[in-house]
Amino acid sequence: MTGQIAAIILAAGKGTRMQSDTHKVLHPIAGRPMLLHLIDGVAALNPARTIVVVGAGREQVEAAVQPHGAETVAQTEQLGTGHAVRMAEDALAGFDGDVLILYGDVPLVTTATMQRMLERLHAGDAPAAVVLGFRPADPGAYGRVIADGEGRIARMVEYKDATPEERAETLCNSGLMAVAARDLFALLGRVTNQNAAGEYYLPDIVMLAIADGRHCAVIETDAHEVAGVNSRAELAGLEAVWQAARRARAMAEGATLIAPETVWFAHDTVVGRDVTIEQNVVFGPGVRIADKVTIHAFSHLEGATVLSGAQIGPYARLRPGTLLEQGSKVGNFVETKNTVLGPGAKANHLTYLGDAVVGSGANIGAGTITCNYNGFQKSRTEIGHGAFIGSNSALVAPVRVGDGAIVAAGSVITQDVEPNALALGRARQEARPGWAHRFREKMKARKAEKTG
Amino acid sequence: MTGQIAAIILAAGKGTRMQSDTHKVLHPIAGRPMLLHLIDGVAALNPARTIVVVGAGREQVEAAVQPHGAETVAQTEQLGTGHAVRMAEDALAGFDGDVLILYGDVPLVTTATMQRMLERLHAGDAPAAVVLGFRPADPGAYGRVIADGEGRIARMVEYKDATPEERAETLCNSGLMAVAARDLFALLGRVTNQNAAGEYYLPDIVMLAIADGRHCAVIETDAHEVAGVNSRAELAGLEAVWQAARRARAMAEGATLIAPETVWFAHDTVVGRDVTIEQNVVFGPGVRIADKVTIHAFSHLEGATVLSGAQIGPYARLRPGTLLEQGSKVGNFVETKNTVLGPGAKANHLTYLGDAVVGSGANIGAGTITCNYNGFQKSRTEIGHGAFIGSNSALVAPVRVGDGAIVAAGSVITQDVEPNALALGRARQEARPGWAHRFREKMKARKAEKTG
Amino acid sequence: MTGQIAAIILAAGKGTRMQSDTHKVLHPIAGRPMLLHLIDGVAALNPARTIVVVGAGREQVEAAVQPHGAETVAQTEQLGTGHAVRMAEDALAGFDGDVLILYGDVPLVTTATMQRMLERLHAGDAPAAVVLGFRPADPGAYGRVIADGEGRIARMVEYKDATPEERAETLCNSGLMAVAARDLFALLGRVTNQNAAGEYYLPDIVMLAIADGRHCAVIETDAHEVAGVNSRAELAGLEAVWQAARRARAMAEGATLIAPETVWFAHDTVVGRDVTIEQNVVFGPGVRIADKVTIHAFSHLEGATVLSGAQIGPYARLRPGTLLEQGSKVGNFVETKNTVLGPGAKANHLTYLGDAVVGSGANIGAGTITCNYNGFQKSRTEIGHGAFIGSNSALVAPVRVGDGAIVAAGSVITQDVEPNALALGRARQEARPGWAHRFREKMKARKAEKTG
Repeated sequence: MTGQIAAIILAAGKGTRMQSDTHKVLHPIAGRPMLLHLIDGVAALNPARTIVVVGAGREQVEAAVQPHGAETVAQTEQLGTGHAVRMAEDALAGFDGDVLILYGDVPLVTTATMQRMLERLHAGDAPAAVVLGFRPADPGAYGRVIADGEGRIARMVEYKDATPEERAETLCNSGLMAVAARDLFALLGRVTNQNAAGEYYLPDIVMLAIADGRHCAVIETDAHEVAGVNSRAELAGLEAVWQAARRARAMAEGATLIAPETVWFAHDTVVGRDVTIEQNVVFGPGVRIADKVTIHAFSHLEGATVLSGAQIGPYARLRPGTLLEQGSKVGNFVETKNTVLGPGAKANHLTYLGDAVVGSGANIGAGTITCNYNGFQKSRTEIGHGAFIGSNSALVAPVRVGDGAIVAAGSVITQDVEPNALALGRARQEARPGWAHRFREKMKARKAEKTG
Repeated sequence: MTGQIAAIILAAGKGTRMQSDTHKVLHPIAGRPMLLHLIDGVAALNPARTIVVVGAGREQVEAAVQPHGAETVAQTEQLGTGHAVRMAEDALAGFDGDVLILYGDVPLVTTATMQRMLERLHAGDAPAAVVLGFRPADPGAYGRVIADGEGRIARMVEYKDATPEERAETLCNSGLMAVAARDLFALLGRVTNQNAAGEYYLPDIVMLAIADGRHCAVIETDAHEVAGVNSRAELAGLEAVWQAARRARAMAEGATLIAPETVWFAHDTVVGRDVTIEQNVVFGPGVRIADKVTIHAFSHLEGATVLSGAQIGPYARLRPGTLLEQGSKVGNFVETKNTVLGPGAKANHLTYLGDAVVGSGANIGAGTITCNYNGFQKSRTEIGHGAFIGSNSALVAPVRVGDGAIVAAGSVITQDVEPNALALGRARQEARPGWAHRFREKMKARKAEKTG
Repeated sequence: MTGQIAAIILAAGKGTRMQSDTHKVLHPIAGRPMLLHLIDGVAALNPARTIVVVGAGREQVEAAVQPHGAETVAQTEQLGTGHAVRMAEDALAGFDGDVLILYGDVPLVTTATMQRMLERLHAGDAPAAVVLGFRPADPGAYGRVIADGEGRIARMVEYKDATPEERAETLCNSGLMAVAARDLFALLGRVTNQNAAGEYYLPDIVMLAIADGRHCAVIETDAHEVAGVNSRAELAGLEAVWQAARRARAMAEGATLIAPETVWFAHDTVVGRDVTIEQNVVFGPGVRIADKVTIHAFSHLEGATVLSGAQIGPYARLRPGTLLEQGSKVGNFVETKNTVLGPGAKANHLTYLGDAVVGSGANIGAGTITCNYNGFQKSRTEIGHGAFIGSNSALVAPVRVGDGAIVAAGSVITQDVEPNALALGRARQEARPGWAHRFREKMKARKAEKTG
């Protein structure tokens, strides 16, 4: 339907209201910088080029987008949106396809909407440009789009220049556009800065095209989709919009969320069917949850794969590299990192498992700690199938506990344990009869002395 | 006022939108399957019979309701609500009282409302049937009830058959009814499936009774009470409704909830007066909280009894069989299971107490672990009054620490400790001067070698 | 502009609906008794006197306010607001400045609003009294203030005495007033209890002044600011109002709150710029957070100072006396109390640090416990710069681990460790080959015996 596509993403705003040393468009939503949400959305269209126009902080932005196949161009002076788009002209020399103009701080625009804009551009009436409009609850000071029933634009007006009749229109200009590259730069070359602000405005190309006898079209989308971020409060607002949609999807796909408003997904979380997610669960990036998994309250998962029937939490923290196999359990105040828990294995209480492989059906007692770091390097702990690690044990890696072996409670294990052996590493108990009584008497006497 | 009562609960819907292997009516609200909320509500009326009409998944439902004195009958074909109710006819042969018709996926109907329906059925004007109506914010496509000021029904119409005037009515049919058994089955026998869907509709009995020259009545209730569950999102919605009401009750009865929207009660939670519940507290079933208890943030309680003046959390997890006596304390990252903490006893940090009895005033040091499980059986730990368990100790059950005894920090205790004795079970400290320095040099050299 | 100021705070209401043994005005908002919020607000005006009029529970209130320079007077009979204010007359004998009349259960009135009331009292037209009005969403049964466009009061009417026209007015009386002391008590002396309730009403002084040919003024404020607390539900409502405002301020000042509705600040929390606060973070009193700090989910901080670049949580609990220096880290299930963590030091997992000083760059292994309490006194643990504490160690205070020293995993350390030395305090590992196999056979046989 369409030919080659390029995206120009404007991201040159100063973002002063963010009060941040981080570039505005790099602040995250659902654990991913907002600019990358947009670049992901564009990427699904397989663009020839994705060009981000940046003012201050270009290095930060370049470092963030470069791994994702996008590039940056500089806008050193802030002379308006029309000027910003022109900064991409040289980079697009020779490109003869369609251009999508997007905004780094308007991150939730979907691929479907971008697609609709491009389709409209190639519809039978061949508009010179397609504008994305929306109808906000309060149109306030947005620029208005005056169009007929088929979305053919009569004119676009800035709010401050609008007549009362124009202000009564509710269709507003989001700023997003689709235009053929040759039209875009030809029209932009004719835009002037003869206005109060002395800026080159991108929307002026619509009026120039119309003056040429061509026509331009507007299509509509939901106001949420084109909401922008200028402050941390607005960032939190978009996070909430994103999360609400994601929670609804999880429930529609067969997950129970007891209190949906207290579950936070990451941009890439995968959740199965007949999964129960209790109150207050946070997903960092990289989590995959298979079917029939239960995640109890107050759990935190990141970079973890959880297979069918596993049970997690409450108060479990799964860190990157965790694999919980079928029916395994990680309980309260347990942290796992770079660790595999075999089918049916359990680590239920107050445990740290780092760089460990735990065999099927093994039981890790309360308070077990894998000592995986010596200050310089990490080492591995291997625990065999059906092994039993007594409570409050320390396993000093590298170390291997064989299949079916038992480690006695309170042991420090520094050497490998043979399969089916018992390993002990604890001192013999001694008793000092009456000592506690004498100690208390002494302490009381000392206290009396002090206060006496 | 009324004679014998039977309840017929329709639960034959497929619940496809739940996307679940669990029968829809068994999904929980406040920790209890929604069907049991309804059966509890009926049980307060002391019914002669409670019959659940089930389609697919009858075994699941039977297993859930049977312990609660209810029974199931099968509806193998889904031929409409009228047909479903008839499935209970044989089971009610010889029953001559009143029948309440309820829906397993409309779980929050109260006993008071059921009572009102039955009272209306026996009011002076002796209606043939009582319909429960409600006025939703948006009546949408609900069937309408056209009635006079006394609630005498003129007619009931499906939305699709309704005239514009009828659609303008806001009183809607919830589907719940009260009818004398003899009337119910006599009328149902005359209902036909001569309609677009080819189904037998229960509400048709109202029009049949009116055609017989009898009259039927409608009473109204709040829309929240008759909200139904067809998806996990609606399940979460009803959970929210239930929780909001329960939180309001807790506050009215004298509990402070700092952030009520973050406290989740179970169906049977009991909370006293001058109790403070901080942010993010989850109650599982079986919790009783006496007066003047403080539950700090991020705590999780289930099957626990907490006596007056006790302090819990933050980050405390009380599991079934926990009894916290007067003024005792369970602090952060502490888990208790099947454990009694005597008056004034404390377990404040990073501790696991399972199958333990802790005497009054005893102090359980940070990092204490009761080793109550050997892979085959659970054993008990007894800690005497005023005993002091030094930090990071492991108590290997079965074991008894006498009154006033002290366990030295870091000990593994495998034998009973006499009252007032000191017990040690730890190795003597050794020093290797300069070793750390040499270790670091070696590690650095090795690293240099690798990268060099 | 104004002369001396006194505040009279009415707090004699019984607060029955609170269902509490604690005086209503002492229930906290943002971790501070509501009465103290008000006294803080007054204190910024540097008042000559702050007098709280108390009925039952005067001792509780006196104890709470006395350290803050306020005093209490008793109202033993509850004869109305006019009578309550007169209880302060003797205490203010000889005071000739302005009086602010406030309410202990209307705690969120700002200093700025108090100031505006006083300024209005001294404006050119010299009103005899200034009333604070508000326009609630639903004016309901509030008393109405009938005033002209300049806020000059025509009359004030109780709702029950109001005509339909008066009820249509939306400006309501909050009860707060500013009056010169001499006017206040002169007018109050003329107020009678000739009304249905037999009470002396404070607002009557307005009508008396007008009858004298003087005039009174009303100024307006936001309804939230004059919301009162009569129940725990209303207390939770004001907490929510307070928190929403505080969260907005934190975001405006440059903190990211991923889910603002799940972050709870205390009255005195200080938060820097480019701070990230994840979901579910609770601040108790006394917390200062410098710039570029990250607080991960489920963290709880109280009395802690956190310097730039530090990272906290998830699931970290910082208790009073905690100082985290630049770039230090406190991780999951870690509790600190009266502890300094030097620059770059780390305590990442399942650790309790109490009464400890940790040197820069030191690494505290998982499961480390400082044993700082012997049942009678607390002792200190000192850990040197660059020291490495192996996992699951117990440090029995008082004890000192020198710079660069290493403690072997699983050790109990009772004696000081020299700089750069290695300290071990653990038993040698023993093996019993085949024991686990024999144990399992025995346990299975025993089980078979029991069930056989």
